[in-house]
Amino acid sequence: MSASNISPEFKLISLLTQSDYPKDKDIALGNGDDAAVISPNVSEVPLKRLAISVDTIVEGTHFLLSLSTPQQIGIKAVEASVSDLIAVGALPKFILVSITLPRASPNIDNSNLCRKIYEGIDDACQRMQLTILGGDTSVGSDSWSVSVTSLGYILSDKRILTRGGAKQGDLIYVTGALGRSAAGFYALKHKLKDPQLSDLIQHHLAPRCRFDLLASELGELATSAIDISDGLSSELHHICRASKVGCLIDEALIPIDAATLYLAQTLTLNPHELAWNGGEDFEILFTCPRHLAARGAPGVCIGEITEEGSGLSVLRRGRLEPILAKGFDHFNC
Amino acid sequence: MSASNISPEFKLISLLTQSDYPKDKDIALGNGDDAAVISPNVSEVPLKRLAISVDTIVEGTHFLLSLSTPQQIGIKAVEASVSDLIAVGALPKFILVSITLPRASPNIDNSNLCRKIYEGIDDACQRMQLTILGGDTSVGSDSWSVSVTSLGYILSDKRILTRGGAKQGDLIYVTGALGRSAAGFYALKHKLKDPQLSDLIQHHLAPRCRFDLLASELGELATSAIDISDGLSSELHHICRASKVGCLIDEALIPIDAATLYLAQTLTLNPHELAWNGGEDFEILFTCPRHLAARGAPGVCIGEITEEGSGLSVLRRGRLEPILAKGFDHFNC
Repeated sequence: MSASNISPEFKLISLLTQSDYPKDKDIALGNGDDAAVISPNVSEVPLKRLAISVDTIVEGTHFLLSLSTPQQIGIKAVEASVSDLIAVGALPKFILVSITLPRASPNIDNSNLCRKIYEGIDDACQRMQLTILGGDTSVGSDSWSVSVTSLGYILSDKRILTRGGAKQGDLIYVTGALGRSAAGFYALKHKLKDPQLSDLIQHHLAPRCRFDLLASELGELATSAIDISDGLSSELHHICRASKVGCLIDEALIPIDAATLYLAQTLTLNPHELAWNGGEDFEILFTCPRHLAARGAPGVCIGEITEEGSGLSVLRRGRLEPILAKGFDHFNC
Repeated sequence: MSASNISPEFKLISLLTQSDYPKDKDIALGNGDDAAVISPNVSEVPLKRLAISVDTIVEGTHFLLSLSTPQQIGIKAVEASVSDLIAVGALPKFILVSITLPRASPNIDNSNLCRKIYEGIDDACQRMQLTILGGDTSVGSDSWSVSVTSLGYILSDKRILTRGGAKQGDLIYVTGALGRSAAGFYALKHKLKDPQLSDLIQHHLAPRCRFDLLASELGELATSAIDISDGLSSELHHICRASKVGCLIDEALIPIDAATLYLAQTLTLNPHELAWNGGEDFEILFTCPRHLAARGAPGVCIGEITEEGSGLSVLRRGRLEPILAKGFDHFNC
């Protein structure tokens, strides 16, 4: 890891990441050398399983410098990456950060922007007690990108939570209201200043993953899980394909909060469209056998897993329709 | 991990990475889910230490599409990242790849380019028996970047090889000839077609890290180590700063191969300048106590560690001069 080909002021960025964090006892060699080394121990017992994921957010695709503060960009980069660990039931522990920034221009103070992105990264690390193991900073293209690799421990001895374990008859849950990020984006796009919408805007610009779910019984209850980054429709397709099952969703059961309904009403948008395809809500979609759901699953039931070959359907105003996997390109809609 | 905001043809890129690799017994959950999960075991004994590093190469800074084939870009991205693991004595095992590519343009077939970059990534993985654990592909800026996170096992129970262990009186070694990557770049820049220069050009475009050194006794002999990515001068400064020592290098001892000397002669360049500041040679710079060096260190001795406060000096044509840490920006020289 290095900070090659960058001007001296950026070398301090790598220093920034060295000092602020408490020494985690599992870190044998911290940030600042060629590689970091972890010695994963849980209560003195060597860790058996380590989860790893990488996620990159790119200016113009996942954020706009005209809408997001640099701190919000840093928060979003970490929370989006860690969300993948939550979906497999891993306790997030460490991140590595790779930032690509534009060549210096007279109009933008790259050094200050980079420092503020690290403030946002630090904010998310503090919230989830993560340590930065390393990273690099490269100067390159005309735009910014932030790539975060996340590492977490799987503490349970049970099977790993994947996309592929849903069974016919399982109930389908989401852990919270959907469409909020897309609603926040529309509020920004239309410059709506209504205080009722400020939480949505915050959720769009600096989302928080469902780190809190690790304290729930999700890992014990769920047969499959995925985080909602692309949108409910896409994630249902992932679960059904990996699990070789179909599903039936009751659209009326999909949780949509009051602020999203209010935004949709204000702009004459279909709130369900935001929930289906908005993406970046970072809630968890999971499936759960009926008998375990009775214990109290952490979310809202929106449908049921059906047999393989039955396809993906939604009950919409009394009619059965197929569920199409759509993405949502915020900045080109 | 996902392939969000990308056109359907890129979704197949993530599929490409799922099928080609033999199932490593330490992979509990492979590429294709939200996160990958490894269960690191060495001969049924849980692994104690895991090394991790990230390295990003960016179009225009680390490679040019006009000079490199996409396969060479893939090779360079992996080899540069894994080189950091070699420097801490870790056996490379897994990588995660994050590619950022430009929005589609009529002139460039992004899909084909991305597929060929993966062919290069695959080439490096085959060479070093690495498995791709996951990755993502994002569409964004005007240029390409490839970020590779590498994970490796530290098998020895001994201390970890860092930049910080050099002691006064240790000898300083490099594992091979320096300046070759810079020489290769100049050969390309000046369109020299001489077959004597083809190895240098190959080394510049598709470097290979010193994976073979893991079979040597480097880990047993060395007191400190670093890979030469930025250039000998910069790496000496890193070692001396981290180890709180000085150094004295005899410039005449720095290994420069015949092809580099020939290139330098052809273009009237100073071959030592290429060796000092060229970078991207991916050889290892290490220090070694004299009594252990007698066993046969895998490299060429170029100098000696001196006491703290004595600074970094080079003996050059009978004169002592300070060593300045210089980078080398290939594409702006």
